[in-house]
Parts: sequence; structure tokens; C-alpha cells
Amino acid sequence: MGLLEKIQEPKDLRKLNSTELATLAHEIRQEMIKVVSQNGGHLAPNLGVVELTLALHRTFNSPKDKIVWDVGHQTYVHKLLTGRLPKFKTIRQYKGLSGFPKRGESPHDSFETGHSSTSISAAVGYAKARDVLHEDHHVVAVIGDGAMTGGMAFEALNHAGHSETNIIVVLNDNEMSISPNVGAMSTYLNRLRTDPMYDKRKEELEYLLKRIPGIGNQVAKLAAKAKDSLKYLLVPGLLFEELGFTYLGPIDGHDLALVEQVFEQAKNKKCPVLIHVVTCKGKGYKPAEENPDVFHGIGPFDPETGKVAKKSAPPTYTAVFGETLCKLAEENSKIVAITAAMPSGTGLNEFAKKYPERFFDVGIAEQHAVTFAAGLAFGGLKPVVPIYSTFYQRAYDQVLHDVCLQQANVVLAIDRAGIVGDDGPTHHGIFDISFFRIIPNLIIMAPKDENELRHMLYTALKYNGPIALRYPRSVGQGVAMDKNLVEIPFGKAEVLRDGRDVTIIGVGPMVYTCLQAAQELSHLGVDAAVVNLRFVTPLDRELLSHYARQTKKFITIEDHALKGGMGSAILEFLEEEGIDDVVVERLGYPGFVDQGPISKLLSIYGLSVKGIVQAAERLQLLGSAAES
Amino acid sequence: MGLLEKIQEPKDLRKLNSTELATLAHEIRQEMIKVVSQNGGHLAPNLGVVELTLALHRTFNSPKDKIVWDVGHQTYVHKLLTGRLPKFKTIRQYKGLSGFPKRGESPHDSFETGHSSTSISAAVGYAKARDVLHEDHHVVAVIGDGAMTGGMAFEALNHAGHSETNIIVVLNDNEMSISPNVGAMSTYLNRLRTDPMYDKRKEELEYLLKRIPGIGNQVAKLAAKAKDSLKYLLVPGLLFEELGFTYLGPIDGHDLALVEQVFEQAKNKKCPVLIHVVTCKGKGYKPAEENPDVFHGIGPFDPETGKVAKKSAPPTYTAVFGETLCKLAEENSKIVAITAAMPSGTGLNEFAKKYPERFFDVGIAEQHAVTFAAGLAFGGLKPVVPIYSTFYQRAYDQVLHDVCLQQANVVLAIDRAGIVGDDGPTHHGIFDISFFRIIPNLIIMAPKDENELRHMLYTALKYNGPIALRYPRSVGQGVAMDKNLVEIPFGKAEVLRDGRDVTIIGVGPMVYTCLQAAQELSHLGVDAAVVNLRFVTPLDRELLSHYARQTKKFITIEDHALKGGMGSAILEFLEEEGIDDVVVERLGYPGFVDQGPISKLLSIYGLSVKGIVQAAERLQLLGSAAES
Repeated sequence: MGLLEKIQEPKDLRKLNSTELATLAHEIRQEMIKVVSQNGGHLAPNLGVVELTLALHRTFNSPKDKIVWDVGHQTYVHKLLTGRLPKFKTIRQYKGLSGFPKRGESPHDSFETGHSSTSISAAVGYAKARDVLHEDHHVVAVIGDGAMTGGMAFEALNHAGHSETNIIVVLNDNEMSISPNVGAMSTYLNRLRTDPMYDKRKEELEYLLKRIPGIGNQVAKLAAKAKDSLKYLLVPGLLFEELGFTYLGPIDGHDLALVEQVFEQAKNKKCPVLIHVVTCKGKGYKPAEENPDVFHGIGPFDPETGKVAKKSAPPTYTAVFGETLCKLAEENSKIVAITAAMPSGTGLNEFAKKYPERFFDVGIAEQHAVTFAAGLAFGGLKPVVPIYSTFYQRAYDQVLHDVCLQQANVVLAIDRAGIVGDDGPTHHGIFDISFFRIIPNLIIMAPKDENELRHMLYTALKYNGPIALRYPRSVGQGVAMDKNLVEIPFGKAEVLRDGRDVTIIGVGPMVYTCLQAAQELSHLGVDAAVVNLRFVTPLDRELLSHYARQTKKFITIEDHALKGGMGSAILEFLEEEGIDDVVVERLGYPGFVDQGPISKLLSIYGLSVKGIVQAAERLQLLGSAAES
Repeated sequence: MGLLEKIQEPKDLRKLNSTELATLAHEIRQEMIKVVSQNGGHLAPNLGVVELTLALHRTFNSPKDKIVWDVGHQTYVHKLLTGRLPKFKTIRQYKGLSGFPKRGESPHDSFETGHSSTSISAAVGYAKARDVLHEDHHVVAVIGDGAMTGGMAFEALNHAGHSETNIIVVLNDNEMSISPNVGAMSTYLNRLRTDPMYDKRKEELEYLLKRIPGIGNQVAKLAAKAKDSLKYLLVPGLLFEELGFTYLGPIDGHDLALVEQVFEQAKNKKCPVLIHVVTCKGKGYKPAEENPDVFHGIGPFDPETGKVAKKSAPPTYTAVFGETLCKLAEENSKIVAITAAMPSGTGLNEFAKKYPERFFDVGIAEQHAVTFAAGLAFGGLKPVVPIYSTFYQRAYDQVLHDVCLQQANVVLAIDRAGIVGDDGPTHHGIFDISFFRIIPNLIIMAPKDENELRHMLYTALKYNGPIALRYPRSVGQGVAMDKNLVEIPFGKAEVLRDGRDVTIIGVGPMVYTCLQAAQELSHLGVDAAVVNLRFVTPLDRELLSHYARQTKKFITIEDHALKGGMGSAILEFLEEEGIDDVVVERLGYPGFVDQGPISKLLSIYGLSVKGIVQAAERLQLLGSAAES
């Protein structure tokens, strides 16, 4: 390639001239397009921050200066500039580079993320630690305009603005067409504010005002009363100024020299500074510029055309969910849908188009989304709230108190439940069964396939009270779709196969693995029953008691953590019923799960036919079956 | 009494003249002082909203119009005006009126709360439901300035402001949450409060500017360029205006006529309106006005003097925690402490005084508090974050991702763990073991008494990684305090009593109940071992295995929910170890727990000597012991 290969660490950037930098920017874009077109990944956000990242690493002295990236999926450029070019082709692959910052990967990764709106909090932490330890370095948080809607970003601004500590927040604003702050007037005002002439001009204006006889004095007096009111007159970004930040910008985030100049200016201020940088998502790659949402996170594609190879596959659970919700909303005008900035990801695009007045995108704001839903429910509607399992962690208190304690009539749709693959530990949804099943009043269902998902959604919408529906990221099983939707019998599990030797209890699509394993076991002489649990809460105590008596041996399997999960619920059930002659083997994840292909990860953790057969072995079934 | 008894419902208020209203306000205050001086409760916040509540119920038509109270501890006046005077003396008592809004109590209680910053979200929900259903009524959220620092309030403002729906937010600004407020928002509100004359000034200035020949024009032109700049110059509440709200105020919240007038004005606006009402916490009762933080939430006191009867009792766990932390911070300058607006409640007052530069009050912002702590840790400090168990639900994702996934060196101090008594289900801390123990990398300890708490805090501060410490609201056991602090052996439980027939495993102060029960059982011929678990994670597998073999029977007891709790961890352990000949009885809470005296609640749920003996009976120990 050329220049990019010569960049071993950020300081190598400082030797380059502007022509070389332009070449380097181009090389970085080519490298990212090449690798992401093979591995998949977050392309558009990274194309948008090439110059911004170059400017950061030329102006600041990482890792001494701390750069904290919000969300973290826009750190590919950062990784390329901090010695990770050789490993870049492994990004998002098993044992490869993470698609997010990882402290273990590089000292330049100061904070790990994956979820939104945490960067300012972490940066204030770094800044205050520096102050307490009397150290001397800069702390920079880089946060997108989307992440700014998350409540904790505001909590952090509120703290930082008041603290008067030296911290720099870079607001990476890539919603070009929307922001009213961008434009000629704004640039003009910005020049007033950021160039050294601003102070002089302020003096001039004050002087002029005072010279107006009589009236001028009055004006000046009035102006003086509103504290800093001249600033109000001239400064954009007032919202940030009100919160105690010095606002710089907006500036063109692809004008490298300008960005560097403003960063230098910010470095010299000894107070909280917010720099408003405007970038273009997908910059430099036409297909991504034209469809930044498609290229936000994308699978492998043809780099020449930007076309994603269409596989003929069953529809995803998400798609089936969205389609079914649309259909049911036709018949029930009280159904409304809420998303926290994920209309596409949660399958609500069609719903939004068809029922705009019944669709609410509240921004990256899961807490508000859930409590808002409770309010909608008490107001007489039937809200459905699809949020990714991992992001539901953000609304835990709201689900517990605002929905479940007061039994609000809300459907929680837990999308991306289970491992999600290449995005890794921050995006796997492997804790929701544990943290949700302990909440009183909450019903939790999980469908074995996309057809059952439709019936379960139908069931949830008929139910009066808090109810959750858990389904994975993947494509469905490709099963036939029933024509008519019916209610799933409440709290009842489904027996898919009877058996005498062992009961394999599965939840979600894992049930199909259970069926395959039962087949395999039958070849080995073991007669396994297979139960599709359907309801994590309430458990089907009658059916489970029956199989406890019949088989005395349980294997539980869940695409979920072991601690507190479905298997634990089964253990609790046995204890509560005083059934003490059943032996249980639980399959699931023992802790955080790395990134990697889903099938590989499932196999590593024994969530597979082989894993179930091995569990049967541990239950001494294979020996005893052979004997019998 | 007189007038108050005649108020059966809000509409009765509308007949009263101003003299009668003043008398009524006085009667309300007297009634509240009388009852709270007996029952304990949130006095100061309620004294502050007497006129505000009268104005709400005279201007709006509840329950058709929806009034959503934030936090909810300031609804005593509301309860008195909505038919609950006869039951008011039972407030916060077992089976009595709740100290918070309860939908089951009255149709006037539109949304249940207890935690902060949810009201705007719920109100937007009500408002949007109204819009979708083409109904016609008002929706009002009443939120304190403290609650305004919570991120989800901002998320809701951000949504509401852009929704252009008809919603009224009453910002009840008393410059306090529980302790004086902090943060940029607070500073900002303070600036607004001190500049009340804006309407008049705005008119004057517009008039003047137009009249200045030449120069005036220049100023006006300059002003026109900055969008809405005259507004910026003159309007307070710009932060809210920027978010899409029409800002009215600030107004004196004790001037009933004025408040009603502004409410009427707001009713006529068809857009989001924020009314800034300034009130005095504790208004009308001198001891509360002088010490609003003491009278925020208070136990029984002498209404004449405002003196709280001092009981000679052992220090609370909270006090011991605060004192020990102060002492240890003396020796280790890297120890810093963070509170989310609870310096007094979490025992940090002394620390704040002694180490102001190492103490951070971030406002009601648990999410930020935890991620901020992770940043501090990576910056080289040792942060300790005491938050009430129930409020930790607000920072679940942050604990999981920002602290535990990246193994930040943070001490989570879980105060008020277990049931808390009169505050009821929103404040009981009975889910933390379940939702925290499933998080990989997190160590969880619980001390049996205040002396062990000190050693555990010492241990936690020596530990390198995420570690939590769980302790209750109550006073300690009154045990002797060791002179020197030592590290608790990592992951090791403590045997308090050996025994052959059954092992009683307790966590936290429940261990003392276990010891008493063992004594009682020994009289009944049962030889019970007692284990103080100390570590919920990691479990002491060696010791538990030993007692599994020795006694074959376990009773687990925890001041915590049954689902997913410590008892479940024991069940998981037995399954993992393949120990299938141990019978377990778990004691804990089956669901939400009502308000009431702690001792009564413990006894109801069998967390008592009697409950343990009954569990032993269920394990057929009493019969078999008699036989042997």
C-alpha cells in the first residue's frame, strides 16, 4: 500500500504533510472497504471519522492523553493508526481484533464500549483521576449526535459542566441534513466565537451600547442583568454553554487542518469544552454515502458495487416479528410500537410507514422507552417495545418498577437474545432470562421457531399485563407458517418427543438441537423426551413434575448464561416441589462469550448435539442404556 | 378539624375562597406534621408542595386530567385532597396507605413511583395515548429539580419537546433533592430563579431596540441573525426552550393565586410547557424549614420541638461503612467516594468534609456514577460507590459492561440491601443478589454484622477488580469492634457452628437468626451447622461440599427474593458438583414485599427462628431426630 504501512504509532502521523495526509486518508478508506467487504462490520461510521481520527492522533498524545470513544464501532481508523494494521483483516473474527475498543488490544484503547452514551462519564472519570493525582494530560470523549440523546450522556454533561475540569467532548454530528446549526450563519457565528477577535468585538459592542445616550445605557443595563447575555446573542450551542461547556463549532469534520486547529484551541482552555464536528457518514465511498443506514453495520458485500450478496434464506425472527406486528395492528388499533433508535434493526420500518401516528422512535433512550410504554398502557393502548436483549440492561429498573410492579399492559420484545456472533460480548444477549425471570409479575415466553413467534406475539397481545417475548438474531428455521394465529396455552410447555430415560428441556430455537440430539441418543439406546419450554415464567409445573417422575434425569439447554438462567429455574422448581430424586445437567454459558461465528461458539460451549450427548454421558445414561 | 374534613374530592376545593384556602393549607400542614411525627415519613417535601397541590387540584380535573408525580414521596397533600384523610394516619404502616402513589389506592394515583425521574416519561405516554385515542384532557408531570438531573428525565424532555404534544411539566424547584443539588443544571436553575423579571424586560428591550436609529438597527440586525436571539437575551429557561418546551416562570410556589393563574395559562397552550415553580422545602414548619434534609425522610419526632427521640442503639451499617471508609482513606490517598445525591443517606458526609477533592456527588445519576467510577479506576484511583440496592437497578448495564466486563477496580457498596420497612416495594433491596451474582467477574460479599462489614470493606479496598459489598438499612448487631482490620480470606465462608444433621447457610445478618435457630433446633434434638456464607460469589465450594457430605440437608436463608438468589446459587453449585443426594430448603421472598415493620415482614416470610425450624420440619429432621 504505502503510507499506511509506515504508521506504527500515532506520532508517525505528525511527520506527514497535507498531501501525504490526504493520501493516507484515502488508503485508510480503501483498507476498511476491503476488509469490511469481506468480514462485515460498521463501515459507514468509520468512513465518516477518518479525518477526525487523524486529527485526534496528530493533536493529542495518546496513550498519555486519553481518547474515549462512545459506542466504539467507529474505532477502525483508530485501530489502523495504533499499530493494528497487520491484524486488521481479522477484525470481528474469532480470536481476531474486536470491532470495538478493547483494553487488552492496545494501550490506546482507554475504555471498552459497545453500548451508547458512556464516553463522557468515563472521560470525566479519567479527568478527575488526573486532577486528584496531579497529573497533566488531556482527556477527550468522542460521542455521536445519536448517543447524545441517551440520558447518561446528559448526566455526565451535567456533572462535567459543573466540575470545571479540563475535559474535551467531541460531538461527532453526522446528521448533516437535519442540524440547523450547520450553515452560513452558524459558521459566521462560530468564527465570531472561536477566532481571537471575538473578545474584541464583544468589547466594541459593549462600548457602542454605552455610547447611545439614555437609551443605550438602558439597553446596556438590561443586557447586563441577563448574565452573559451578549454571549447569548452570539453563541450557538447555547444548550451546552448553559451546562457549563465552552462550545466550539460547528466545523467541517473532513477539513483536517481546521479540525486540528480547533483541537489545539481546545487544548489551551482549562475548562470543559465541547467541539461540534460535522461529518458525513460513509464519506468517500459512494454506496455508503448514499445509504449510510445500510452501511452502518453490514455483512460481506461486493466492494465494487456495494451490493450485498443476497442469500436465499428463511426470514429472520426480527422480520417475522415486524411483519406479524403490522398485521395484528391492522385488526387492533390500540397496538402501538416503540423503538429506541432502532426502527430498522427491530423490524419496525414497515410498521412506522403504515402507522406513523402509532409508532414512536424515542432516540437512544431505553429507559424512557419503557416507562413511556407504561404510560401509554395506562392511557389505554397496547404498547410493544422491541429492544435488543443487551440494551434492555439499560432499562432494567424501568421494566421492574414502571412496568412489572404496577402490572402495566406492555409487551417487551427481547430481540437479539442469545449470542449474536461477530459483535461479541457487549452485544450478546445472554443475561436477560436471569435478570428478567426474577421480576415478579413478568411472563416470559420464547418461541422455538419463527412460526411459533407469530403465535406468541399474538398471545402476548391478548395478554393483560407485563409479558416478554425472547427471540434470537438469526434467521428462522424455515418452517411452514400457519395461516391462522392462535393463542399459545398459557404457561404450558410443549412435548415434542416422549421418552423414558431422560428429558431434554430446551428454550427457544435450541429446541431443534434437542430434537436432533434425541435422535442421536436413540441410536445410542437412550430414549429421550424433548420439551419445548415455551414459558420461562411461569413454568409448566405439571408437565415438569410428570417428566421428573418419568425420567428422573433432566438436561437443560439454553442460548444463555448458566447462572440464574432457565436451568436454574428448573433447579428451583425441583427444590420447591420437594422433588429430590432428579439429577440435572445444565448447558449454557459459564461467563462472557467472545466474538465469533454463532455456530462455532455454540459448539465450543456444548450447545450442540454433541454437547447434549456428552451431558447424557455425564448422567451415566449411555452406560446404563447399553446395560439395559 | 374543620375544612380539610369537608374535602371529599378535588372538586370540593373549587368552592373555597382565598381565606378558606389559606386555612385549609394550614390544616393540611398540621395534619401532616401530626401523622408524620408519629409514623415517620417524608415531611419536608410535602410541606413544600401544599399550595402547589391545591393549585393542581383546583385547576386540573383529576382523574380525567392525569397528574403524574415524580418520586412520589411528595403525594401526602394529594392523598389528603383525594379522599384519603380518614386513612391518612395509617400512612407507611403495614396494610396502611402507601407513602407513595398507588394505583390501587385511588383513581387519582395515575402512576406508581418511588424512584426518581420517571414522571415525564409516563406523562408523555399518557399524552400520546390521549392523542392516538383522540381524547381530550390534560397531562401534568410534577418533577423536582433534583429528579431533573436523572438521565431519563432528559430523555423524556428530548422526546416530549419534539413531539409537539400537549403536556405540562411542573418543575418543583426547592434547590434540594434530599441534600442540596449539584451539577450544571442546578446552577442553571439557580440563575433562572434569581432573574425573574424577564417578561417586562423583553418588551422594553424590543421597543428600545427598534427606536435606536443607526446603531440600534445594527444591534437589531445582529440580533436577528442569531436565531431567536432576543429570546436568548431575555428568556430564562432557554435550555428548556431549546428542547422544545415553552418555559413559564420562575414563580413563587407558595403564592396559590399566581400558581393557579400560570397553570390556567399553560392549559391554553397546545404544546409542551414547562412551568418553573419555586418552593421552600419544609414550608410552614420551622424545624423542617431549618433542616430540610433531616426532615426529608424522618422517623417519629416531637412535633412541638422537632426533636427526634434519640435511641441508644448500635450504629447503623451505613454509619460504620462511612466511618471505616474515612479511616481507610486516610491511609490510602487513592480512595475516592461517589454518591448519586445521597451523601448523608450513604454515610459519606464525613468523607465529603474530610476529603472534598476525593468526594464526588454527581446528582441523581446512578448510571453516570458507575461509569464515572470505572473511568476513575482506569485513571489510577480506587473508587467506592455506595448506592442503595434498589437504585443500583438504575445502573445495571453500567455495572455489567463498564465495570465488570472490563474488570475495573471499583468497589460497589450496596446499601439498604434487604427489606427496608415502611417505604415498601419500591425501596426494598431484594433483587440485587440475583441480578448481580450472574455478572461475570463480580465478587459479592455480605457481612454478618457491622464489625465484619469493616473487615470486608478493608478487603474490598485491597482487591483488584470489581467487588461488591451488601449490607442492610438497619442498625448493627451491637457487636464489639476489632481494633485492627484484616483481610477476609478470599472466597471463604465462615463456620459458626458445626453440626451433623443439617447445614443452615445464611448471608448477611440473617446469620444471627441462623444461630438462634440452631440453638432452638438443638433443644429439639437436631444438630445444625451454621455457615456464614460471606461470599455470594465465588462460593466456597470446598466448605459447601464438606457440609453437603456431612449433613445431606441444607437450609438457605436470605433477606432477598427466592428467584435467582443465594439459595439458587447453592442449587447450581450442587448440580455443578454432581452432588445429587442433598435436599435443600430455601427461605426468602416469593415476590414483591409490602411495606411494614421489618421484623413483622421477616416473620411473615419465615425469615425467622420459627421459619427455619419449620424448614427443618419439612426436611423431616424433627421426626428423624426424635427417632435417632
